[in-house]
Amino acid sequence: MKKIEIIETAFRDAHQSLLATRMRTRDMLPIAEEMDKVGFFSMEAWGGATFDTCIRYLNEDPWERLIELKEHLKKTPIQMLLRGQNLVGYKHYPDDVVRKFVEKSYENGVDIFRIFDALNDIRNMEYSIKVAKEQDAHVQGVISYTVSPFHTVEKYVEFAKELEALECDSVAIKDMAGLITPHDTYELITALKEETNLKINLHCHCTSGMTPMSYYAACQAGVDILDTAISPLSWGTSQPPTESMVAALQGTPYDTGLDLKLLTNIKKYFEEIRKKYSSILDPIAEKVDTEVLIYQIPGGMLSNFVSQLKVQNALDRYEDVLEEVPRVRKDLGYPPLVTPTSQIVGIQAVMNVLGGERYKSVTKEVKDYLKGLYGKPPAPVDEDIRKKIIGDKKPITVRPADLLKPQLEKCKEKGEELGIIKKEEDILTYALYPAVAPKFLRGDCEEEPLAPPVEAEASEAPKGIPTE
Amino acid sequence: MKKIEIIETAFRDAHQSLLATRMRTRDMLPIAEEMDKVGFFSMEAWGGATFDTCIRYLNEDPWERLIELKEHLKKTPIQMLLRGQNLVGYKHYPDDVVRKFVEKSYENGVDIFRIFDALNDIRNMEYSIKVAKEQDAHVQGVISYTVSPFHTVEKYVEFAKELEALECDSVAIKDMAGLITPHDTYELITALKEETNLKINLHCHCTSGMTPMSYYAACQAGVDILDTAISPLSWGTSQPPTESMVAALQGTPYDTGLDLKLLTNIKKYFEEIRKKYSSILDPIAEKVDTEVLIYQIPGGMLSNFVSQLKVQNALDRYEDVLEEVPRVRKDLGYPPLVTPTSQIVGIQAVMNVLGGERYKSVTKEVKDYLKGLYGKPPAPVDEDIRKKIIGDKKPITVRPADLLKPQLEKCKEKGEELGIIKKEEDILTYALYPAVAPKFLRGDCEEEPLAPPVEAEASEAPKGIPTE
Ligand SMILES: [Co+2]
Ligand SMILES: [Co+2]
Repeated sequence: MKKIEIIETAFRDAHQSLLATRMRTRDMLPIAEEMDKVGFFSMEAWGGATFDTCIRYLNEDPWERLIELKEHLKKTPIQMLLRGQNLVGYKHYPDDVVRKFVEKSYENGVDIFRIFDALNDIRNMEYSIKVAKEQDAHVQGVISYTVSPFHTVEKYVEFAKELEALECDSVAIKDMAGLITPHDTYELITALKEETNLKINLHCHCTSGMTPMSYYAACQAGVDILDTAISPLSWGTSQPPTESMVAALQGTPYDTGLDLKLLTNIKKYFEEIRKKYSSILDPIAEKVDTEVLIYQIPGGMLSNFVSQLKVQNALDRYEDVLEEVPRVRKDLGYPPLVTPTSQIVGIQAVMNVLGGERYKSVTKEVKDYLKGLYGKPPAPVDEDIRKKIIGDKKPITVRPADLLKPQLEKCKEKGEELGIIKKEEDILTYALYPAVAPKFLRGDCEEEPLAPPVEAEASEAPKGIPTE
Repeated sequence: MKKIEIIETAFRDAHQSLLATRMRTRDMLPIAEEMDKVGFFSMEAWGGATFDTCIRYLNEDPWERLIELKEHLKKTPIQMLLRGQNLVGYKHYPDDVVRKFVEKSYENGVDIFRIFDALNDIRNMEYSIKVAKEQDAHVQGVISYTVSPFHTVEKYVEFAKELEALECDSVAIKDMAGLITPHDTYELITALKEETNLKINLHCHCTSGMTPMSYYAACQAGVDILDTAISPLSWGTSQPPTESMVAALQGTPYDTGLDLKLLTNIKKYFEEIRKKYSSILDPIAEKVDTEVLIYQIPGGMLSNFVSQLKVQNALDRYEDVLEEVPRVRKDLGYPPLVTPTSQIVGIQAVMNVLGGERYKSVTKEVKDYLKGLYGKPPAPVDEDIRKKIIGDKKPITVRPADLLKPQLEKCKEKGEELGIIKKEEDILTYALYPAVAPKFLRGDCEEEPLAPPVEAEASEAPKGIPTE
């Protein structure tokens, strides 16, 4: 009997997707021990945007959050999302920073490292995988999923084999835009199960509304682990609801074995959290949006476009931007749209539309991308456009991080000069966020105020609606 | 190649489920012709609670709505939900009223009659089926789905065969509480396809969050038709999103063949409608709620309990009421919880909890139910409780409507006396809603005001959230 395991994302991806990563540690701890009883495969609770948000907006030390969570989660492994060589930032860090960061993360409580690269360039992942393996952590390699003529089942299987060769313990298909159909899910997972010996984990966002179906197809194809979010923080740009998945699989060969009553109590806690944070819950993030399928744009990017265009008084160009995104993506060799490529492609698409001429202005990031500094694009880039932008310069062929000098010693010295280093982890915080960290580490940061909840219940909602 | 057909519920069930059935005809007509182009199997657009709401709250003539919709929907069949002998009301009407109502509905534009009875008592459906068949309409018989030790696949198949014997053109599984799991869906539909020659239509509400998975399983079992709602009016206590279903099945053997771009344009219209009606959109109705699975209570009933208990200052008994519902349901022979049994069971459960002693006070409806006046309960009722409530009285064994005298002539006379009959349909409106109709038909009704939209976008929502 195949038992499906569940990863609960409430403390990382779910609130990153719906609540701008703003959930405070003090709102996690009261329910953590209840969640620890459930029997999740793991709880994703650290990494991604949580690190940045903690020091930038919440005046929280992310390392302390990790330690406190670990104290409450005695049984359930803590999982973190690591952006490969980007760690929890937006650019590559040198290997010495990567090593120390992974070591300290493990030491402070991370049990499972989920490691991805936006371009599926294994060279951007291999060092962090190696160090995490050295810690004896469970290492999960990620396939960043996208749809393009170059992204075939064969290519994904090939990449999974590279991850297996690096001794990853499992592999996650990360469908950050909710693009994967039930049919494609079945095909991909069937192939991965046939061609590798890896545990397969499916991680999708519900943006297009297809995800529950894809999860079901995944079960049929033999998936091992599914990522879900407790229902008040589910659906929309977040994961499918935990309780619904558990209920749907009960009594089938895919039974998760989790207790629905226990989950219902946990849900009630998160209903209050949802209310508490309702002022930052973006209704757009909660909506199903199949435009993601037409333009292959993840939900988070859509609201970014709206605000960027508003600022420039050009909201009427919204549709043009949506149509420009797939063109830019094609020009750049079909990168999956995930941090940081989602930002790189999105900003350039806006510039192409508003600038009157495509690539008349080009961001530094696009230039660096074309120079190969982010890694190898999944498919050939458009040669004419590359020439227009970087001329005859040839892209680098070495591992991007090989060009970076060790940095930790310098950060330590400089941090000590600034008087902001009280523990070893502070050096990492400073190395990762040199602009933001000093203020935080000095204690000059203030927690961003949380606006009062918006009206929770529609005041006029009539009661006593007949059932059918 | 099996093509799945889609019924769009925006104009009936979707707004009944999420917007208290308050959508005005003038908000339907501007998009109706666009929707007519899609190629839906049908649009559910009349019946259920729409009739009642039109005359009670909207000062709209439901018959005129039907005629106007028919003018705009040239290609797409209009489907109505008919509560069997209850028509669009809450009690049995005599056969002469049923006949005239069905005839006039067909004459004014209904192409497909979806006919259900809360107890799956064929005797409450046979007359309306017969009359609808006489009109040459497509008649869809309904299986009201519920979960109990007495509701087995065999029983449902047996009932479907009874519907087939009455020459129903198709059969719908109506899962009004969102109880059906993907696994049970597969089993039930497989059996129905094997044992009958009927087209099978699955109609579920998303309350428990399992529905998209069940729809997918239904496709695998050979379902012919699925009910969906355009995304801004989908999910929660409504149907799964139309666009997501279409997208998920594209390019598979279950392809619906519908155009996603056309649906996206229609979706944009309904986003505005959703905003316009946001003051009556109950957030509870939008939430996934797996408590429906623990207590088998449809979503609509939960919010009724909250308001009933609030009025009686007894909100602390909410959990007790939830736990009492399955007991009352068992006592009454496991009726599916749908209009009117959902109200009958719900109100009695509240009385049992607040009264201190179970069945100390009993509603007239429960007495009538035990006398067999609503039809035959699906399973034996509790004998002790029946004795306590109706003593030695034996339940009727004839078709309940056989006890009702013809009523139409009298209604006509009385209506003419009141001076409220301007067309034949007015007699029906009066016969169905004798308390509410006169005021409406006299023109003394005023349209309920629609409160202004609630703040559409969370004001504090931060932008630029990283993708992973
Ligand atoms: Co994610
Ligand atoms: Co319904």
